[in-house]
Amino acid sequence: MKSQEKTGRNVTVTDAFWKGKMEVIREHVIPYQWEALNDRLPDTEPSHAIENFKIAAGEKTGEFYGMVFQDSDIAKWLEAVAFSLENTPDERLENTADEVVDLLERAQGEDGYLNTYYTVKEPEKRWTNVRDNHELYCAGHLMEAAVAYYNATGKRKFLTLMSNYADYIDTVFGEEEGKIKGYPGHQEIELALIKLYDVTGNEKYLKLSKFFIDERGKQPNYFDIEKEKRNDKNPFFFNDSYAYNQAHLPVREQKEAVGHAVRAVYMYTAMAALATRTNDESLKRASETLWENVTQKQMYVTAGIGSMEFGEAFSFDYDLPNDISYTETCASIGLVFWAKRMLELHAHHKYADVMERALYNGTISGMDLSGKKFFYVNPLEVQPEACEKRHEKKHVKPVRQEWFGCACCPPNIARLIASIGQYIYTQTENELFVHLYMGNQTNVTMGGHQVEISQQTNYPWDGSVLVTVSPEAEATFTLAVRIPGWARSARVKVNGEAVDYLSLLKDGYVYLNRTWKKDDTVELDFEMTIERMQANPLVRANVGKVAIQRGPVVYCLEAVDNGINLPAIFLPRGSELRAEYKENLLNGVVVITGEAERLNANAWGSELYRPASQTTETVTIQAIPYYAWCNRKPGEMIVWVNER
Amino acid sequence: MKSQEKTGRNVTVTDAFWKGKMEVIREHVIPYQWEALNDRLPDTEPSHAIENFKIAAGEKTGEFYGMVFQDSDIAKWLEAVAFSLENTPDERLENTADEVVDLLERAQGEDGYLNTYYTVKEPEKRWTNVRDNHELYCAGHLMEAAVAYYNATGKRKFLTLMSNYADYIDTVFGEEEGKIKGYPGHQEIELALIKLYDVTGNEKYLKLSKFFIDERGKQPNYFDIEKEKRNDKNPFFFNDSYAYNQAHLPVREQKEAVGHAVRAVYMYTAMAALATRTNDESLKRASETLWENVTQKQMYVTAGIGSMEFGEAFSFDYDLPNDISYTETCASIGLVFWAKRMLELHAHHKYADVMERALYNGTISGMDLSGKKFFYVNPLEVQPEACEKRHEKKHVKPVRQEWFGCACCPPNIARLIASIGQYIYTQTENELFVHLYMGNQTNVTMGGHQVEISQQTNYPWDGSVLVTVSPEAEATFTLAVRIPGWARSARVKVNGEAVDYLSLLKDGYVYLNRTWKKDDTVELDFEMTIERMQANPLVRANVGKVAIQRGPVVYCLEAVDNGINLPAIFLPRGSELRAEYKENLLNGVVVITGEAERLNANAWGSELYRPASQTTETVTIQAIPYYAWCNRKPGEMIVWVNER
Repeated sequence: MKSQEKTGRNVTVTDAFWKGKMEVIREHVIPYQWEALNDRLPDTEPSHAIENFKIAAGEKTGEFYGMVFQDSDIAKWLEAVAFSLENTPDERLENTADEVVDLLERAQGEDGYLNTYYTVKEPEKRWTNVRDNHELYCAGHLMEAAVAYYNATGKRKFLTLMSNYADYIDTVFGEEEGKIKGYPGHQEIELALIKLYDVTGNEKYLKLSKFFIDERGKQPNYFDIEKEKRNDKNPFFFNDSYAYNQAHLPVREQKEAVGHAVRAVYMYTAMAALATRTNDESLKRASETLWENVTQKQMYVTAGIGSMEFGEAFSFDYDLPNDISYTETCASIGLVFWAKRMLELHAHHKYADVMERALYNGTISGMDLSGKKFFYVNPLEVQPEACEKRHEKKHVKPVRQEWFGCACCPPNIARLIASIGQYIYTQTENELFVHLYMGNQTNVTMGGHQVEISQQTNYPWDGSVLVTVSPEAEATFTLAVRIPGWARSARVKVNGEAVDYLSLLKDGYVYLNRTWKKDDTVELDFEMTIERMQANPLVRANVGKVAIQRGPVVYCLEAVDNGINLPAIFLPRGSELRAEYKENLLNGVVVITGEAERLNANAWGSELYRPASQTTETVTIQAIPYYAWCNRKPGEMIVWVNER
Repeated sequence: MKSQEKTGRNVTVTDAFWKGKMEVIREHVIPYQWEALNDRLPDTEPSHAIENFKIAAGEKTGEFYGMVFQDSDIAKWLEAVAFSLENTPDERLENTADEVVDLLERAQGEDGYLNTYYTVKEPEKRWTNVRDNHELYCAGHLMEAAVAYYNATGKRKFLTLMSNYADYIDTVFGEEEGKIKGYPGHQEIELALIKLYDVTGNEKYLKLSKFFIDERGKQPNYFDIEKEKRNDKNPFFFNDSYAYNQAHLPVREQKEAVGHAVRAVYMYTAMAALATRTNDESLKRASETLWENVTQKQMYVTAGIGSMEFGEAFSFDYDLPNDISYTETCASIGLVFWAKRMLELHAHHKYADVMERALYNGTISGMDLSGKKFFYVNPLEVQPEACEKRHEKKHVKPVRQEWFGCACCPPNIARLIASIGQYIYTQTENELFVHLYMGNQTNVTMGGHQVEISQQTNYPWDGSVLVTVSPEAEATFTLAVRIPGWARSARVKVNGEAVDYLSLLKDGYVYLNRTWKKDDTVELDFEMTIERMQANPLVRANVGKVAIQRGPVVYCLEAVDNGINLPAIFLPRGSELRAEYKENLLNGVVVITGEAERLNANAWGSELYRPASQTTETVTIQAIPYYAWCNRKPGEMIVWVNER
């Protein structure tokens, strides 16, 4: 399956929507984060991440400082740099990255070990608390970065360093006698080892990833074993349950997503990738079961997941409160990772639909349009006064923050956007799947032929896409184009001629098998209706409400456009909604306007309760894309609007 | 104003609704609590309350155990006993109470001091932390109990002990030089001292109460002064703000209810009572301002107050979430205390309406029908799975508990119900106000004449009330009867003859001034419509919803009658609702039934979101009085029902 991994490299994104975001990452986020990692930001808690490596390398004296997983910030930054270099070469940036790789080399132990917390602070305690201390997590992020850097630059050094680290870890963990039968408290290395396997072809890494997945949740629980060795008597904070780490059951017995959402989706990503690579039917079934649970019972309409602040966790089926959701940016990002792995396993539009939903909504909402401020939590309803005054809403910030003590989300969104091209296509021997629509250009090998593929589109504002297929010579293969789940109807033309696509449709993809020649075109036209989405009636929070969606974009109402007390707005079922592209608003967005009814608070008077006598007035509402909220005057926001 | 206090004594409650509850208090709650106070309950954490007094009296050895305010449990029990004895003499119970009083006497210091925590545990630290350690709070409860016991039994001993204690406290606190310029962290003694003044006539107690009220919130803040003396460097848990204790501002400058709800309403109760007794206009205005804030902006339809678990506190205007409310039983009880004091200040139906709302809803919901289990928190929406799994809802219990570590609510509800007769009437020289309607018999002195008053009614199930007025000799005075705010219309007859009551109506009371003679009757008939109540449009949580109310009783839907997923029920505006008394249900209640529409979850299928396509089915709903919920099979409950 290695060919799949390679697809997506050398995709040049030319898309108006994404190119702007990639530029923001390149021009603002990456340089800003570099300053942060070097403690050069004023008024911000120092990161100390680079400093920690220098101390570990013996080049500086001092103490380790920061989160136990501080190293991963460097890894995610390097990975974002790699993805960015792939789209836009930048010699100076590459030199800086090379220097960081050199620093990593100097900080790495002779045995391959590389973790500044343990090297500097508790060198004798390596691997004594894999439940809490993120050693394997940091290792995984470094491996991912190394793979990305190799793919982007062709330079092997970082990859070799991390292969050495993986080789060392393989001597420590595994089913063989004398090795630790443990697995990480924060999953990540599992998916990273698969990437390392894909790029090196070394089966050892696949096997180690499989070991971590297979071992997880077995009884007696490894976390208890190591806990006893540490003589740790404290109950685990999450109701004393390893459901937090998805280690409450063997993974194949897990039917419901539980615990820390990011941990969960990183693990599910690895499970799906492993299932593809090892043809593991039971792992495939487990992946599908968990996918159904998350996307049919525990996902917000923005593709936010993890509805509970306690443990940054999933709560239970259909429990999706809008105003105290956690919906961490990183969790939606993980959902994108997972969706791509599910698509490799089985090309079905349901995976791509969720991936798209996450990409245009719950992930990019995490960053402001300038790339300078970030949401960790992406709520679907915000009343600023409640965030300030109600204790259980303190995690819901009404405005994006500059940086976080636990700075996981900003670098994660940076690496996602910088690598957006990798999510457009997957391929098998003879099939090229087009999952996402965005302006891009790429070269793939189909049946031994080089094929240049390009897309032109105004997506997500417009449902028309022109795909150009140019093999170097005539070549027969399948181009499978996705019909998005949101499209009420579609038209497909090949070289200008309408195709009866329904007969070619399987699982939401139109399989265009033909002999392609230079400059062949596929024109797609998806009906982009303004939809009033409803939720399953079991979602208590959304009864009587609709979410406005157009194409893949979910909308919201903000106070800056609609005044305060947004829940008092009722959208009548018959009210016409209009879409209009506004070039100068929020970097260019389609806004949705229409007439609505609004409870008249002034007419009500001072009483708190009285027999039904509310009156309404007619107002014009304007909805903007959810991802772009809080880029003007901060204030109230809602996604789910009362309907009447 | 002493005459007012005396009204309400010797009211014999004969009411079907309340008599049953009073019996439960007498037969179950008081004996059960006595067992608890003596550590004789199996499977329950020992209270140690009696034991603490024995140790303080030097009759036992051992350590103080329990909450710092454990003494108040004894006080509240004694007060409930006193009220109960007033209605139903019980020699054995009175003997037991006498023995407790004797024990208190032996535990009391020579100087009058009586607090087992300090006497046993930290005798040298008296009055060093009045912010947190409830010394004055416990003293207040003991004084209230002493007053009640004197009123019930005529025995002066307990009253004398507590007068001695008050005299001692008066030597410690006050504006005179050398005295502490402090005030309690938990208000209570302020209202108790007024009761002590009313019954003893000793102005010293009124003055001390006024001192505590006037001193509160002055700068520099006394809590900071004593904190510094203790060398306590910790920030105060409530965002470092004494708004928790309503000590952030002088009371006359407080415009919004903030902080711990029980503390707040106990203080407001004292403020109103003081304003009446001292003709203090500024205090009266402050009381009215705070009343408007609480009842027009921060009160649930059940008269629950304090919407936030953090600090058991008020949050902010119109912030009344139904599913994570705190709405402590004790806070609603305090609202009843306060309402009565406001009625003394100014007879206006708005105070009695709230008092009645609290009495028939948010207070008695705290106890099950058998008097064996209690709610501390009285939510307006419960989904048991959420209470179990969502961390921020852990305080919302889906079923009543047997006893609490902090056992404030059960004895508080006991003393309220046992003294319910005290809330029916207030009087001035020449006016007798009838605030509540319930079967009772009492004797009052009007213009020097003894007048026997009685009521017969089926309230709250029926709006007809027969008041009989029987002066020993013809007497001219005003009987002012309340027209409840919920009544759409009313009829008033005197001796069978209709009265044009509107011309006699002032602030919701019909002033019937006449020369009354033996067996005169006043017939009242209030139209008891089934109302769909709406909330002010600024209450976000209730937009699009109605609460069913009939007379003073607020209704709810329970899963046991209506199945699960109650938010999926829509009550159509035109749907007819019917009231029916069911004698064998929940000790006899009027239930409300009608047709409603319910979202059809089965027809929806497995998807989580899709374009508007929810369907409904017609169902019959049954609503029961909110106070009686969770007396059958536990499960979901909602007060606010979606409307369509």
